[in-house]
Amino acid sequence: MNTTVKQAVVLTSGGLDSTTCLAIARDQGYRCHTLAFDYGQKHKAELDAGIRISRALGAGDHKIIRIDLASIGGSALTDPKIAVPDHPTRGIPVTYVPARNTVFLSLALGWAEVLGACDIFIGVNAVDYSGYPDCRPAFIEAFQDLANLATKAGVEGERFRIHAPLLHLSKADIIRTGVRLGLDYGMTVSCYSADEEGRACGVCDACRLRREGFREAEIPDPTRYRPGSPFA
Amino acid sequence: MNTTVKQAVVLTSGGLDSTTCLAIARDQGYRCHTLAFDYGQKHKAELDAGIRISRALGAGDHKIIRIDLASIGGSALTDPKIAVPDHPTRGIPVTYVPARNTVFLSLALGWAEVLGACDIFIGVNAVDYSGYPDCRPAFIEAFQDLANLATKAGVEGERFRIHAPLLHLSKADIIRTGVRLGLDYGMTVSCYSADEEGRACGVCDACRLRREGFREAEIPDPTRYRPGSPFA
Repeated sequence: MNTTVKQAVVLTSGGLDSTTCLAIARDQGYRCHTLAFDYGQKHKAELDAGIRISRALGAGDHKIIRIDLASIGGSALTDPKIAVPDHPTRGIPVTYVPARNTVFLSLALGWAEVLGACDIFIGVNAVDYSGYPDCRPAFIEAFQDLANLATKAGVEGERFRIHAPLLHLSKADIIRTGVRLGLDYGMTVSCYSADEEGRACGVCDACRLRREGFREAEIPDPTRYRPGSPFA
Repeated sequence: MNTTVKQAVVLTSGGLDSTTCLAIARDQGYRCHTLAFDYGQKHKAELDAGIRISRALGAGDHKIIRIDLASIGGSALTDPKIAVPDHPTRGIPVTYVPARNTVFLSLALGWAEVLGACDIFIGVNAVDYSGYPDCRPAFIEAFQDLANLATKAGVEGERFRIHAPLLHLSKADIIRTGVRLGLDYGMTVSCYSADEEGRACGVCDACRLRREGFREAEIPDPTRYRPGSPFA
């Protein structure tokens, strides 16, 4: 373990939020290792985006862990029988993947422990959080408590910290932060129904929040929309 | 969701402890769904044992989720470069898999949420726990707190309960409990280095604890030892 350079594991989905989170971690001086999941999601273009982004932002290592959340089902993002909605919905949306962030943070924790890194960054957001329960501050705090009980490193006196630097930012503020740090958001894929080239539908919840963010930030939207999208 | 029958997800490794845990959950009136993980462990015989045990004990559904913990490394159970020790060791052993129970419980939580089950059983044990941090009572409590923050069901008022009925039992007491509930421990595989037929080495930490448990309980050891084992 190199004690002179702070190391962090950054969850990297290929989307706007996690890419901003990675840029923030890098800006804070961390040597970042990025972690993505091939979890049976319909929108695999995000995995390709994650690889490109990690390379562009100088991540130390980029790992993709395969985990079959589709076998559990219960979400529009993993179950072919549940459609991704093309309009805003009330309450917790059908794109909620049961226990997803708990699973992702658990694996990030395991990898962090092996790397000797005590810092984990996740780009969750409680403002535009779409009603996902595992994007709330209380969830992040509870996971940090768990991390220090769950691990050999925690028992031996290391303190894991779960960083969620976007937690209280609006989408517009996230975008302003990323642009200030030099990010090209054209690399990122947020759409739940992106095509194979990562081009966005423009109408799902994720696209809608992203579009509104660029508009509110008064920054031109660099998103590539697919043919047939109202914004293509 | 059937509200007249209590449903539970039971983590089932094919070993002595988790099988006893399943028998206890069944005895408490739960309709049990069993969950195993193909996580890159060297001892795959446990997966076959888990299937046989789930069938024998009348589990409603048995799911094996593939998850590549070997890509994270850091454990003698998943990394071919780290040998499983054949003698007792001090401190947290090299068979510790980073964040394993956190990952397993997270996936159990996701499946439980989809099934509409609020009860999760895990056969961890704090007495003969081999020094694993994620087998301690405080870890189980922290995970239960997390579960109720992490999920849609928790937000909507359901209460998840993490049951660890073996937590304070000695290995001998676990064995006595299982025998009282009619278990045939010959079905189970505990050995870290079992051969393809599930026959045990007799000398690893898991074998040693198991042998001592049968001796202390004064119950004949039904374990099948492999040729070359000192107990074959």
